[in-house]
Parts: sequence; C-alpha cells; structure tokens
Amino acid sequence: MTDTLGFDIPAHVGMPESQIQTPCLVLDLDALERNIQRMGEFASSHGVKHRAHAKMHKSVDVARLQERLGGISGLCCQKVSEAEVFVNAGFRDILISNQIRDPVKIDRLARLATTGARIIVCVDDVLNIEELNLAASAIDVQIEVLVEIDCGAGRCGTRSPGDALAIAKATISASHLKFTGIQAYNGSAQHIVSYREREAAFQHLIERVNEVLDCLSSHQIACELVTGAGTGSYSFEASSDVFNELQCGSYAFMDADYGRIEDAEANRCDETEWEHALFVVASVMSQHDQLAVLDAGLKSMTLESGLPEVSGAQDCRVLKCNDEHSMIEDPQSVLRMNDRVRLIPGHCDPTCNLHDWYVCVRNGVVEALWPVSARGRSL
Amino acid sequence: MTDTLGFDIPAHVGMPESQIQTPCLVLDLDALERNIQRMGEFASSHGVKHRAHAKMHKSVDVARLQERLGGISGLCCQKVSEAEVFVNAGFRDILISNQIRDPVKIDRLARLATTGARIIVCVDDVLNIEELNLAASAIDVQIEVLVEIDCGAGRCGTRSPGDALAIAKATISASHLKFTGIQAYNGSAQHIVSYREREAAFQHLIERVNEVLDCLSSHQIACELVTGAGTGSYSFEASSDVFNELQCGSYAFMDADYGRIEDAEANRCDETEWEHALFVVASVMSQHDQLAVLDAGLKSMTLESGLPEVSGAQDCRVLKCNDEHSMIEDPQSVLRMNDRVRLIPGHCDPTCNLHDWYVCVRNGVVEALWPVSARGRSL
Repeated sequence: MTDTLGFDIPAHVGMPESQIQTPCLVLDLDALERNIQRMGEFASSHGVKHRAHAKMHKSVDVARLQERLGGISGLCCQKVSEAEVFVNAGFRDILISNQIRDPVKIDRLARLATTGARIIVCVDDVLNIEELNLAASAIDVQIEVLVEIDCGAGRCGTRSPGDALAIAKATISASHLKFTGIQAYNGSAQHIVSYREREAAFQHLIERVNEVLDCLSSHQIACELVTGAGTGSYSFEASSDVFNELQCGSYAFMDADYGRIEDAEANRCDETEWEHALFVVASVMSQHDQLAVLDAGLKSMTLESGLPEVSGAQDCRVLKCNDEHSMIEDPQSVLRMNDRVRLIPGHCDPTCNLHDWYVCVRNGVVEALWPVSARGRSL
Repeated sequence: MTDTLGFDIPAHVGMPESQIQTPCLVLDLDALERNIQRMGEFASSHGVKHRAHAKMHKSVDVARLQERLGGISGLCCQKVSEAEVFVNAGFRDILISNQIRDPVKIDRLARLATTGARIIVCVDDVLNIEELNLAASAIDVQIEVLVEIDCGAGRCGTRSPGDALAIAKATISASHLKFTGIQAYNGSAQHIVSYREREAAFQHLIERVNEVLDCLSSHQIACELVTGAGTGSYSFEASSDVFNELQCGSYAFMDADYGRIEDAEANRCDETEWEHALFVVASVMSQHDQLAVLDAGLKSMTLESGLPEVSGAQDCRVLKCNDEHSMIEDPQSVLRMNDRVRLIPGHCDPTCNLHDWYVCVRNGVVEALWPVSARGRSL
C-alpha cells in the first residue's frame, strides 16, 4: 500500500488491527489520551508547567494532542533539525535541551527565532555564549539561554556554581541573548529501578540545583525557568519547590523499561500508573512446535533496554530478536499464522525513530495514520 | 542544509569531511570499492556466484557498485517492500531470503514479477505453496521457490528432509511456481568469534544441506541453486562443493562485531581482511577533563552488538551511548570542540537503517551523497 505521495504505508483508516501491515508502530489512542490528560492534571495540581519532550515521539500530531489535552507550556527538542520540524508546524515555544556548538547548526538555531517562536537553548561552556550571540545578532533575533548544570549524569553541564555563574553573567552581557534559568536533567537516573535509590539520585540533583540558585541569587540573578525531569523522576522535581517546569516524554507512550521501575511502596501514586499506549505490532510468519517467528526485529525496535515484552498473548515471551525476526516462546500454542502480536518495546524513543508512521487505533480499528514527523532528524 | 526536495542533508559534494553535518553515515569509497572487488574475485576464483544481500546497505547505489565492480549475480532482500525499491530501480534478479505469509504481501511479491524480474522466495511450510501459487496464477506470473532448511539457527526453515521434500514436490506440481533449490543460512553462527567453533557450526550446516540434497536427488529433484552464507562463513560454503551461491552483505561495509571474529590461525586468508568502509561520524559538542561528549547516540547507531569503536583518535574509546550522545574517554585530550570523530558501529545493518543518507568520501572530500534507498522498508 502506498499513500498519494508514494510512501509505503502500513494501514488505511477504518482497517481492523488484525489486517494492518507489519511490522509497524501502533498507538492505542484511548491509553495515549488518558496518559496525556493525567500528566496535565498532575502538573497543574502541583503548580508546575509541563514542556513535553518531543524527542520521544517526534510527532507533530502527538504534540498537538499534548497541547489540546495536556495543557503543555511548550516543547523540548534535542536537535536543531528536530526543532525545525515543530517550528515549521507552528509550535511557538521550543527549548533545545542540548548544547549546540557547530557554526552551521548555531546559524540554523538562530533562524528558528525569525519565525517569532521563542527559542531557548542549553549552554555548559562560556565560550558558547559568544558563538550564539554572534549568530543571533547577525540576523537580529533573540535566543534565550539556560545554563545546563551537571547533576550526576557526568555528561554535559557545568561542574560548579562558579561556572554556571560565569555563563549567566556572559549571557546577561550579550546583546542578543536572554538569560532564562537552569536546565537540570539526569537521564540515566530516570531508569533506576528502586524507588529509594532513584529518590536519592534526585535528592542529589535538587541539592546541585539549589547550590547554583543560591550562587546566582547572591549575584542578583533570577531564574525564570528551573526546568528538567523525566518520566522516572517528575514527582521529585514537582514537589521540590525548586523546579517550575517538567520535561517528560515517555509517560505518553511508556515502554518496557519504564514499566519496570518501581513507585514508592508506601506512597503509591495513581498518577504514576502510566498505560502502555505504544506497541510494535508484528505478524506470525513461521511456526515450529512451541516457537513462533514474528516479522519484526532490530530494524523495528531497539534492544539497548532489553527485549520487548509480548502484550496480551497468554504465556508468550520474546526469546531473541534478529535483524528482521523475533522468536517467541508460545508454550500453549495460542498463536496462529498471520496473527498480529502487540509487542511493548524496551525503549520507546529510539524505537519510534525507526518508523515512518504511527497507526492510531481505537476499539480495534485504525482511526488515523500519523507521520513520525521528525524521524531521522538528528542534525 | 536541505536538498531540492527539502530533505535535511548532512553534506554537499566537494565539502571536506571536517565540515559535514553530524551525526551521519560516511562511506570510505576506496575501502568500499576494494571490499566489493575482493569479494567478486573470491567468488569467481571459487566457482560460485555471489548474490549480495541488500538488507545490509539498503542502497541502490551500493548495489550498482556491487554489479559494476563485484560481478554479483543478483540481490537478496529480506522484505517485499525492500525488494520493491530494488526492482523499481531496475534490478532483475531478486531473492527474498525470507518467508512471505501475509496475503497482501504475497500479492505484492507476485506483482514484482510483472516487471520481468526473476523473483525467488523462501518457503518452510507446505501450506505457503498454495498461497503463493494462487497469487502468481491470478496475474499469470511465475515465482521461484527455494525450500529453506533449518540448519542450526532454530528460527525459520524445515526441520527434516521429508518436510523439504514435500515443499519441493508441491512446488513442482504448482502451475505458476518453479522449484529452484535450497536456502540454508545460519545468521547467528556468522558471529561466533572462534574460528574453530564457527567452522564446526558450518560443518553441521553443510551436513544438513547434504541430507536434504540426497533426499531430493533420490526423488529425481535437482537444485539449480544451493544458496546461503554470510560474511562470517562464506569461505566454508564456497569450499563445500555443495553451495553454488553466496549471500554476503556486511563484507562491503564491515562493523565492529564482524571485526572481532577470528580467521583460521594457521590459515589466514588475505581475502577475509575486510576493511572498515562504514563510519558513523559525530562531532564533539561538550568537554570536561578527559571526557568528550559526541552528538551521536542510539538514534544514529544501534547497540545490540556492543558499543561503537573510535577510529583513528589516539587512545579514545566509547564509554556509553545515550539517545543522542556518546561519551568518549579521551585520556590524552586529543579531541577539540567540533572535531569530527569516525565511529565504527557495532552492527552495520540496523545502523544503516537509521539514516537517510550515505556521505561518500574519498581523500577527505565528499564525492557523492547516496540515499539509503530502502530505509525503513520493513513491510
């Protein structure tokens, strides 16, 4: 099947899920809408804004749903070329939660602001301030700057309050930049399974943020935004009295990895019970005894966070994935040739980035086909 | 940068490699051409054909180079939608080295033959023969059939000579099918590091093939093709006196995983010294002490075969990859901000499938930009 532009598409609107062409991504619209609404309510009830992270879904349609049902304050993107897709689609408040150092990319970043969109970028090196200001002043636009602080990830980010202060001061002195606040995010710590250990990691993070806030404040520098947080940690940041903006992404779709992290045993929050809304749907294409071979492999889902889980098929589990196949143990032989099987991918972000389409399903029927608008946009 | 169709492109022809936009795939054209030529010479000197596997590169341009310099006899594809790309580009001898069971895909498969292309498909279930014949006869084309035998992978393939015979007989009886021979491939065994253990796995495979050949021959059924083999095993099949066609893919680009497998200690063959021709090129975007952060992560290379290796930068090694970042230990601080770093991906096939372009470089300068023509074609 191809659409009017000749793209290879996995389904048509109105088709039952049992007939869609596989492998493909399926979004359960009811679950997706509930997740988005729930995060909107959580943020609102905690008095913080939610700037949804678009690097997860890379979809203009999902972002619009997050605006309509989730009351998001804007979007995060991770790359300039990704942000271009969302700015071109009309989004007007974008944070690039990353450093931009290449001169060509800095120029592209500045040009995003010519649309009238608010463009915010992260900086962890004072030398970057002059580079950004040069590009912004050349075309007379303003770029907003967050100082990114390292708060345990050991990746990007300033290593001391003094370094953060130097960046803030340089930003304030720059003609075409605005100092907007602090970016503090620890991606790896989102995935710590134990609630107590995760809490400790985020306690450390909040202490680092407070040190920088104290240092800035002692120099009369205020932060409009203190922003960060992901699906594994947002409740810590939201109740910290320090953060005023969350940046969750995976909550909307969920994945097997986030499904394994634990909530507080004694304090289980309903709002953390995110539903699996994203599936890689595959078909049975070969069977031998209690083994079923599916037509989806490493080109349809990534494995760095473990094997996918089988959804709904009794006692079935994934044994192995090869490039284009997955092997399923099916002890009760419940699967039949050409059955469609919903797999919960280990890690949603890079899995979505493999596909061109989301097949959106409600009550077993395809309701819409959404492009993965920024797929492959990694520059 | 965008091309005339508005696609986000990582480079222009004539640009030095130090300026290309990252992350992107780079092909070292000299190394690629030598690999392709070397495999052509190997096949020819061993009296076997080489049907290159296009699932690895998914590129019409690379396939044309394999025709021009490597004397390939045709192409393998793994999916119908992938084969459509190569048939539409003019390739006329395609083996789908996989089972096709969905009725929509079987119809698409049959339609490929209306172009006049020779279309061969693998079958491991006698019920599939009627499905294929129905589709082929409906539009009066011929599909050729290989019986796929399981030879140790425990994935697809018949489990006994009797099952293979039944498929061959049913094919011969079918009005619009032709029985062409045997597909025997063990993907996982390609990657066994020890030469002796790998040799044993392929000895087992060749015995399984011989059993089926004997069984078919005792029923006066001849095999035009006995085909299989990959970059980890081709020398076993080529010298088996049983296989008459190889299906190598990775040899053209190579990856870190295949770089680790061992040749015969006492019998090192020059022809197995494949060069790394594929790189993921990334840029330094943040630095702290002896840590450099690169702008390429899980959306630019897959990790199921391990971390990428750093090419050419002294003592540097990859510590970790996140979604959009890689962390590099740089003990001698040789890397500078915005330096381009060549990474050798762990596993070439799924890594290529993440990208839209190959940036083709010779002597440090971009010579061509080739689309990853069948990227994402997984149906």
